[in-house]
Amino acid sequence: MKRNLTTLVLLLILSGSLSLVQASQPTVTEDFKPSTLNQPGQEYPQVNSQGYARFRIVAPQAQSVTVSLGGRGGTPLTKSEDGSWVGTTAGPQDEGFHYYHLTIDGGTFNDPGTLNFYGSTRWESGIEIPAHDQDFYALKDVPHGRVQQILFPSKSTNTSRRAFVYTPPDYDKDMTKRYPVLYLQHGWGEDETAWHNQGCANLIMDNLIAEAKTRPFLIVMTYGMTNNVRIGGLRNFDIGPFQTVLVDELIPYIDANFRTLSDQPNRAMAGLSMGGMETRTITLKNLDKFSHIGLLSGGSISPEDVNNTPGLKEKVKLVFVSYGSRELENRRGGGRGPFGGDPRVNAEALKQAGINSVFYVSPDTAHEFQSWRRSLHELAPLLFKD
Amino acid sequence: MKRNLTTLVLLLILSGSLSLVQASQPTVTEDFKPSTLNQPGQEYPQVNSQGYARFRIVAPQAQSVTVSLGGRGGTPLTKSEDGSWVGTTAGPQDEGFHYYHLTIDGGTFNDPGTLNFYGSTRWESGIEIPAHDQDFYALKDVPHGRVQQILFPSKSTNTSRRAFVYTPPDYDKDMTKRYPVLYLQHGWGEDETAWHNQGCANLIMDNLIAEAKTRPFLIVMTYGMTNNVRIGGLRNFDIGPFQTVLVDELIPYIDANFRTLSDQPNRAMAGLSMGGMETRTITLKNLDKFSHIGLLSGGSISPEDVNNTPGLKEKVKLVFVSYGSRELENRRGGGRGPFGGDPRVNAEALKQAGINSVFYVSPDTAHEFQSWRRSLHELAPLLFKD
Repeated sequence: MKRNLTTLVLLLILSGSLSLVQASQPTVTEDFKPSTLNQPGQEYPQVNSQGYARFRIVAPQAQSVTVSLGGRGGTPLTKSEDGSWVGTTAGPQDEGFHYYHLTIDGGTFNDPGTLNFYGSTRWESGIEIPAHDQDFYALKDVPHGRVQQILFPSKSTNTSRRAFVYTPPDYDKDMTKRYPVLYLQHGWGEDETAWHNQGCANLIMDNLIAEAKTRPFLIVMTYGMTNNVRIGGLRNFDIGPFQTVLVDELIPYIDANFRTLSDQPNRAMAGLSMGGMETRTITLKNLDKFSHIGLLSGGSISPEDVNNTPGLKEKVKLVFVSYGSRELENRRGGGRGPFGGDPRVNAEALKQAGINSVFYVSPDTAHEFQSWRRSLHELAPLLFKD
Repeated sequence: MKRNLTTLVLLLILSGSLSLVQASQPTVTEDFKPSTLNQPGQEYPQVNSQGYARFRIVAPQAQSVTVSLGGRGGTPLTKSEDGSWVGTTAGPQDEGFHYYHLTIDGGTFNDPGTLNFYGSTRWESGIEIPAHDQDFYALKDVPHGRVQQILFPSKSTNTSRRAFVYTPPDYDKDMTKRYPVLYLQHGWGEDETAWHNQGCANLIMDNLIAEAKTRPFLIVMTYGMTNNVRIGGLRNFDIGPFQTVLVDELIPYIDANFRTLSDQPNRAMAGLSMGGMETRTITLKNLDKFSHIGLLSGGSISPEDVNNTPGLKEKVKLVFVSYGSRELENRRGGGRGPFGGDPRVNAEALKQAGINSVFYVSPDTAHEFQSWRRSLHELAPLLFKD
């Protein structure tokens, strides 16, 4: 009897395990194609129609190769007979752009198959999971604006600093026309290349402008001096040096060297993650310079902020706050953003107070660039409305 | 006696070997500093004042790590007690920029310490050996031009193609001024990012303009469609598709969207290596469009070319040909460039024939970007002289 009971328990455990295994290993459709971010001619990494990613790394004498993408612990690759290491993520990945890297024999390297993008304070591999709404940031046969690399003098840091300026397609057609400006910040670990490389900011604008869904404006992207602070030390971050570069050096340079509308109603600032924190701090201190505020997965503005900031209600024409839906799920699970309370509650309170407050949630995305591409796509049409 | 003779011979061999060892292992000065191309915060790779490069790669469980730089076979790294792999090149490296990669356990990867540059049809690691003349491409406190990324429509390839346009510092000051244009091509394995990333073309121009050593002009850099051909198959390369993109699509787009001087006297073309071959072919077929020709480590124009090209002598205002000195040494050793005979002899023959022919040799450099940075620095002041 005891033996039969043991057998029964074992069978129950086994059947439970089996169904778990079946649940976590659905059929993977074999329609993998090279990721759109692959280097020219490279077949791997690949993505299938369900959002699974498959990797292939050639390192015949390696002891172990793991990809950081694909959940906790990443995706361990298995050595094939031809000396390559191959593996597929355990499940579908969220739509959009993801950073990742390889761990080869205990060292951190990039996948030689794909392009690199600056994130986590290093140039990392990137992969693109095709999204149902990818049309809004696709390269299309429409008039294209430019991404202009400028080097602007910075006395406070004693060097020439780099910024990228998106100018809309008609910028070089009518030499008398002037444009509003959005200052757009990256997140911690990234730099001034992020918004046009992984964010597709220029293509998002080109497409919106082609459909007459947004007013044409300039976007200025520079390094937010975010990366000398460790994530755990964000509370001690001093906004001073970057505020000096942005407000006292870059803005005057842009207004002197581009055909801008340089008054407060025509200047906006937005940023993602730590760039949102920077945006919040700098705009609230400089309401004579900024009229539109965008915080993308980077906190919110609370009724207390409004009370503590004289003139906010009169001077601010838009407070745009957005998150990826999975970030809000995490908050419900006990997590909490680094500043300012529940963003949805704050956004609603600002609206009740008569402020133009917009809250946007990107469906089924996390603290990643697909949330921020969508956020820019939602934000742009709301800016600089007459 | 026999034994003594053997001992003597052995001693002679040993002393010879020892002196050889001593000759090939001079004292390495321990003043290594991080390469200027390192990723932010990265200590390795390093370079010393003699031009030696030192590498450090963390991969504790790897079986072997080799760096492709440092002569035939590259530089094998040795495992240290802390699990990192360290090694120094056997000798000093030539001044300037070098591509390299790692071979880890039989696989090809990049050095996570440094930035990547597109060469050899892949994004490769780059290292900078400080040069005695590095001042001419240094980032200085002078007015800076812009590097503008454009996406231009191409019917022949049915897509929007990318190009970068250098505009000089005064381009956005006087909206009525128009500028000559240099079309500048990269080499095999590279793309439209090469001339401003590893070539420092924008900084070379900024510095020349600040010293009033060159007339300000635009530089247009696009992909020469070079990379689907293997190096051994260059003879079969069809210039047709790129000529169509450049002459029929890009040039009209540039003239319509930038303030150019669009007549033949104000349009030049130059290129390095395979880009020189493209320049030679396209300019000789389109002398109504190009007046200045620059071939950088990419062949030369012979008296036969002049005889076979009606109008060349009248229409061409400059034929600039350059090489790295080590390339010419190789030629003397029995090597030969891919087309057009001895470049020095050809340059002299053209001069004798009354053509404005300039031949430049970059001292102590090979088929690498330091030769081409110097060549652009020599070429620019010779262009578009009234």
